[in-house]
Amino acid sequence: MIAVPGDEDGAQIHAISTNTSVFSKEEVETVDELWDEYQARGSERSGYYWLVDKEEDGRILGYACYGPRALTDRTYDLYWIAVDPNLRRGGVGRRLLAATEEAIRKLGGRLIVLETSGKPTYVPTRNFYLATGYTLEATLKDFYTDGDDLVIFTKYL
Amino acid sequence: MIAVPGDEDGAQIHAISTNTSVFSKEEVETVDELWDEYQARGSERSGYYWLVDKEEDGRILGYACYGPRALTDRTYDLYWIAVDPNLRRGGVGRRLLAATEEAIRKLGGRLIVLETSGKPTYVPTRNFYLATGYTLEATLKDFYTDGDDLVIFTKYL
Repeated sequence: MIAVPGDEDGAQIHAISTNTSVFSKEEVETVDELWDEYQARGSERSGYYWLVDKEEDGRILGYACYGPRALTDRTYDLYWIAVDPNLRRGGVGRRLLAATEEAIRKLGGRLIVLETSGKPTYVPTRNFYLATGYTLEATLKDFYTDGDDLVIFTKYL
Repeated sequence: MIAVPGDEDGAQIHAISTNTSVFSKEEVETVDELWDEYQARGSERSGYYWLVDKEEDGRILGYACYGPRALTDRTYDLYWIAVDPNLRRGGVGRRLLAATEEAIRKLGGRLIVLETSGKPTYVPTRNFYLATGYTLEATLKDFYTDGDDLVIFTKYL
C-alpha cells in the first residue's frame, strides 16, 4: 500500500538504502539527511516529499523521495527511489514510481527530472526508467567520477 | 583585480544581481541566499565559494559563485557569474571565469558544470561560454518553464 511515511519508518528506510548494494556510503548519508530535513520541517518547508510502499504489518518495501526544483515553474526532481533488494522485479518500483507521478501531478507538476548513474551496475535502473516512459535526455561524461557518467531522464506530464 | 569578497561587498553584489536585467526576482533572492550562507559559514562549510572583480576604490565590477557538487568526485558547479551591465564586453566576465577555473583547479577540480537558460535573452551568455572553451552538453526542453530550456555546459580541466 502506498503511504506517506511517518517517524517510525525512518529506520526501515535507512535499512533499504544500506541494503541496496548500489548506494555508496555518501549516498546513504544523503538520503538520511533528506529524511531528517523532512522529519524536522515537513514536506512543504523542506522541499522533500516522501512516499513508501508499506505492508499491513508496517514493513516497508521501498521508498521514493521527490520535490520541486528551485527556480523552475513546476519542474520536479525525483531524488531517490529504492526497493528492498529481496523484492526486486516484484512491481514495488513501478508502484512507487506511478504513485510519485500521480502525487507530482496533484501538486501541479509539469515535468519530472531524474538523475542516475551511467555505470554498468545501473543498467537495470536505466532500463526501468525507459520501460516506464522516461526519456534519456542527456549524458554528462565522467560527471560522478572518471568512468561514471551522469544520465538524466525526463518525463513531461 | 580578482579578490575573495568580504562582508562589505554584499550590497554591491546584490546591486549587480538586480541590475542584471536577465535575473528574475527569485534568482536575485537565490544569489542573496548563497551569499548569506557563505557569510555565515564560510566557503568550506557552506559549499559556496565567491570571487569578485574589484577596483582599487572598492567598486565591484562582477562576481562569480561556485562550489563542489555533492556526491561527485571533484566536479564543481559554477552557480552564478554576473557583471555590472554597464561594463559588458569589457573583459570582466572573461577575467572572472578564468580566475574561477584557476581556483577550481587549485581545489583539485576535475570538471566544471554550469546551467543556463535557453531563452533568446541568454544568447550572449551562451556565446560567452562557447567562446571560453565550454561544451554545450545537454538541453532539457521547457525545464524552467514552457519555452525556457535548461542548457548545460561543461569544461573538463
